[in-house]
Amino acid sequence: MTAGIFQARGVSEADAAAVADALVWANLRGVDSHGVSRVPRYLELFDKGQSVPDAAVAVHRHRAAVAIVDAHGAPGPVAMNRGADEAVSGARECGIGWASVRGTVHTGAIGYYTSRVAAAGMAAVGVVAGMPNMAYAGARGAAVATSPLSVAVPAGRHELVLLDMATAVLALGRIAQLKAAGAELPPGAAVTADGEPTTDPALAAVPLPAGGAKGSGMSLVFELLASGLVANPIVPGYHSGSKEGRRHRQNGFILAVDVSAFMPLEEFTATVDETVDAIKSLPPSADATEVLVPGERGRRCEAERRRSGVPLGPKAWRELTEAAGALGVAVPVPLGG
Amino acid sequence: MTAGIFQARGVSEADAAAVADALVWANLRGVDSHGVSRVPRYLELFDKGQSVPDAAVAVHRHRAAVAIVDAHGAPGPVAMNRGADEAVSGARECGIGWASVRGTVHTGAIGYYTSRVAAAGMAAVGVVAGMPNMAYAGARGAAVATSPLSVAVPAGRHELVLLDMATAVLALGRIAQLKAAGAELPPGAAVTADGEPTTDPALAAVPLPAGGAKGSGMSLVFELLASGLVANPIVPGYHSGSKEGRRHRQNGFILAVDVSAFMPLEEFTATVDETVDAIKSLPPSADATEVLVPGERGRRCEAERRRSGVPLGPKAWRELTEAAGALGVAVPVPLGG
Repeated sequence: MTAGIFQARGVSEADAAAVADALVWANLRGVDSHGVSRVPRYLELFDKGQSVPDAAVAVHRHRAAVAIVDAHGAPGPVAMNRGADEAVSGARECGIGWASVRGTVHTGAIGYYTSRVAAAGMAAVGVVAGMPNMAYAGARGAAVATSPLSVAVPAGRHELVLLDMATAVLALGRIAQLKAAGAELPPGAAVTADGEPTTDPALAAVPLPAGGAKGSGMSLVFELLASGLVANPIVPGYHSGSKEGRRHRQNGFILAVDVSAFMPLEEFTATVDETVDAIKSLPPSADATEVLVPGERGRRCEAERRRSGVPLGPKAWRELTEAAGALGVAVPVPLGG
Repeated sequence: MTAGIFQARGVSEADAAAVADALVWANLRGVDSHGVSRVPRYLELFDKGQSVPDAAVAVHRHRAAVAIVDAHGAPGPVAMNRGADEAVSGARECGIGWASVRGTVHTGAIGYYTSRVAAAGMAAVGVVAGMPNMAYAGARGAAVATSPLSVAVPAGRHELVLLDMATAVLALGRIAQLKAAGAELPPGAAVTADGEPTTDPALAAVPLPAGGAKGSGMSLVFELLASGLVANPIVPGYHSGSKEGRRHRQNGFILAVDVSAFMPLEEFTATVDETVDAIKSLPPSADATEVLVPGERGRRCEAERRRSGVPLGPKAWRELTEAAGALGVAVPVPLGG
């Protein structure tokens, strides 16, 4: 149904399938804030002209290992998949490849794109910069974005090691989940609009950076690398207060590191396996029952949800089916519905 | 005197100057734990054969943008400077360049190397992996290293934006400083040998990762990228408990991104300036008087210390002058001494 909605809205069949796959992947991994509940927001971005269903994505390559993917407002997954593919292509030729993605919208769960690179036998680093929505250490109010960092490393016997983290203590989606559940936030995760620390999700206005100056420092340099290198800075325009400066947009980059430039892939993945084994064999701390590696929790969620389906809240389901209905797209019968 | 000590110990004149410059840079920037107080430790590593004063550093380049710098035990600054230069050279040819550094010791303040890349008009990312000395979220005891991350971005009117952070809440050197000062640690920075949270620096045995699973996840993927890609894994050997596995060694990598592959350097640095201006113009939070960007605090310390000298503790001064005396190196008269 998700792909159908995008196709009905003017996105090509292949691109609609790509967007739907990225959103459903996030749902399967338990990152529901980046899942199909975002469909209405995409449609709104199309309506406002901030995203373009049939954007002609342009790729510029001035140097062998570097591609600039000019998204021209294409949906995040369309632009970022292209970025991942261009990074892989540069890495095949030069050993490493970098792709900057300029001017897209809502890139979603960036672990999706780094996983795509890892499937080509490469390690990957992915970063996205967006509209300021997080505090900067020492400053009042929203200053920088909760810009995520993902690192994917292919393994052998084990599954991919997949780090996918916001630079905030808690991602915005997680705060929204706690708010919906009426649960308290952990201390140190957010401040009120007046800058006072709070654990009340209803009062939490600005999430705090992870590790204080570390998280906000990472977010700032990610903005400089992701947005600065494609001449599409977000932070200064946002703080200028201009309407254009506050228009939703995102930039990102993906780095692919071709393992075969260093050694045969199997030798590398054997080392990754050995390292994962060492970590998983550590004695758990008093507050844990098991030691997990990055990506493991999401993968378990995916296995469970592939069996029993993805639970969607009533609001998300209603909005999705209303959008489908308005566009003449058939609505499937929900599991257990 | 520092360079003289290294030269007297069999390090070439150029390499001795390079090591001394990196150590003094750390002192100037206020990172005294990575400064000249480390000289006795270097001499000990030479004595044990874990570091090699006249190591023949070998560079292998199988693909245009990727270099592997095999340090063969060369001191950190010698190996990492070579890594930075090889990364720059790859980036000049391909737009980006990666250099992995294999089997060095004590790399010190990695912002030194990323700054070196930035001086060539490039952005840089640097990571080092070393012996486990930090907790891993959910596990008991020292599990992974406080592996630092540095990102350097050249600016125009402003100085370089220079992020240089440990993946721990507090770097080990900072914990040692607080211990020496008899000051309490902030809550959440360390646990005792039994895994209990503590703010007592005398009981603090294992530093905690910044942002919990985020910090330790970054450290783990840094180990996989820095050590795994050069077939010199540290984490599994350490936890195997073997003597060889616990031998001090470090690996690292440096990524150079040539701005000119994207746009003329002046256009990029103008955007960086504009972004720094926007951040520095933000209203300070209640607990701050000024908003700083990464690298600013260290640069101010450097300006001050270039004027009034670097304060060295009596222990560091005694050890340094004893080492100099034993090697027949002239000891300068300390400022104010």
